[in-house]
Amino acid sequence: MAKAKKKAQPVILITNDDGISSPGIRALIEAVKGLGKVVVVAPDKPQSGMGHAITIGQPLRLHPMHIFEGVEAYQCSGTPVDCVKLAVDKVLHRKPDICLSGVNHGPNHSINVIYSGTMSAALEAAIESIPSIGFSLMDYSIEADFTAAQKYARILVEQILNKPLDKHLCLNVNIPGIPESLIKGMKVCRQAYAKYEEEFAERKDPRGHNYYWLTGEFVNFDKGKDTDVWALKNNYISVVPVQFDLTHYTLKAKLEKVLHN
Amino acid sequence: MAKAKKKAQPVILITNDDGISSPGIRALIEAVKGLGKVVVVAPDKPQSGMGHAITIGQPLRLHPMHIFEGVEAYQCSGTPVDCVKLAVDKVLHRKPDICLSGVNHGPNHSINVIYSGTMSAALEAAIESIPSIGFSLMDYSIEADFTAAQKYARILVEQILNKPLDKHLCLNVNIPGIPESLIKGMKVCRQAYAKYEEEFAERKDPRGHNYYWLTGEFVNFDKGKDTDVWALKNNYISVVPVQFDLTHYTLKAKLEKVLHN
Repeated sequence: MAKAKKKAQPVILITNDDGISSPGIRALIEAVKGLGKVVVVAPDKPQSGMGHAITIGQPLRLHPMHIFEGVEAYQCSGTPVDCVKLAVDKVLHRKPDICLSGVNHGPNHSINVIYSGTMSAALEAAIESIPSIGFSLMDYSIEADFTAAQKYARILVEQILNKPLDKHLCLNVNIPGIPESLIKGMKVCRQAYAKYEEEFAERKDPRGHNYYWLTGEFVNFDKGKDTDVWALKNNYISVVPVQFDLTHYTLKAKLEKVLHN
Repeated sequence: MAKAKKKAQPVILITNDDGISSPGIRALIEAVKGLGKVVVVAPDKPQSGMGHAITIGQPLRLHPMHIFEGVEAYQCSGTPVDCVKLAVDKVLHRKPDICLSGVNHGPNHSINVIYSGTMSAALEAAIESIPSIGFSLMDYSIEADFTAAQKYARILVEQILNKPLDKHLCLNVNIPGIPESLIKGMKVCRQAYAKYEEEFAERKDPRGHNYYWLTGEFVNFDKGKDTDVWALKNNYISVVPVQFDLTHYTLKAKLEKVLHN
């Protein structure tokens, strides 16, 4: 009987891009305590901005870590996407029931979904038919308050475990960096067309050679009230369902007229 | 008068993910000779599988390279996406009229668009309102024959320079690895749901510790005749327009019903 109970427990895979020692991943593990068997496979170092990178030119390492009480955890030498792939093949030997990524230190709304290691790990799971959610808190501080993120993460995870909606479900969830009492709730949104206008800071090394630091100013070109940027500005948690079919169907139709005759 | 003529010449930015010394980028430069002023900014080392990664934790280097006759070229220490960003801000000081990426050694159809540094560079340009095309030849050999890739690259670049269709246009073009005479033409497609079923090869280092190499078998779950995989199998060049709005609109509508009440 105990065995049957154990078998029915959902498996929750947790990863992130800030690395296994970041406060955000600890907050996420605590948030879902008791909802299933949690297994952690996360990068051994920060992997922000790694997008959907995978490691093909060199091998990967995987080490067990005893840093979360009562939770099986491994650090991986690769990218967030590598973590998901390795977890399924070499740690779990099965697909988990859900994959969670984060909580990221800093926002991943609008175009950031494309650069984000946090969201790419979640999207990788969705490609593998594992429902997934990436969480990002709009607060870069190491002392950030994860109370609201934890509360809503638990609500969402319970809901998706109960009814996954789609095997390829992938949610991009951003939480405003404000006290929980000010949050108005969750809002399903589309990704805003907002991006960084880059400007590289130019410096000289001691030998007189130039080097460049990526910097940029965030600019929102999208005034829609159905966007994640709008929701976050108005104290909502933004929830954007993300897809991996990148086909631009509108342009496909246009292009067919130009190329097919 | 000569000055006016020069000003009207379109600027063609070329990058890739195999690195500036790969035969593929040389083939692409030759293919578009005379269509505009070509400027090359490409990675100083192979960057396959880097997806949409950007470099944020360390600075970037940029060095002029005199390896392509009569062509301004730079190698960059970063990812393919970094190359596009740096090219616009620090090399061209303007947006090019078109950005080309490749020719990649190996295919980038179906789900590969997400992992591919070649396609991520092209998509980055599209985000920046620069029409772009990524080219991939289904032949990994260093001796690969780029004749067909070059012929169709030139046709497409001329067409897009003449009529860009959309400022965010991004095309994922794959060329079958067959003699040019066997190619039936170009086919506008959607991205197939086909992916790699991963299996990591497990090895032991001399100290007895495990390490893992990513391997995988390509599996096509998508039997549609409107897909890139179908087109390539049937000796067509596949042309898939790619978008950066990752919102899953169908699931958005479903999710609204679940979360908004």
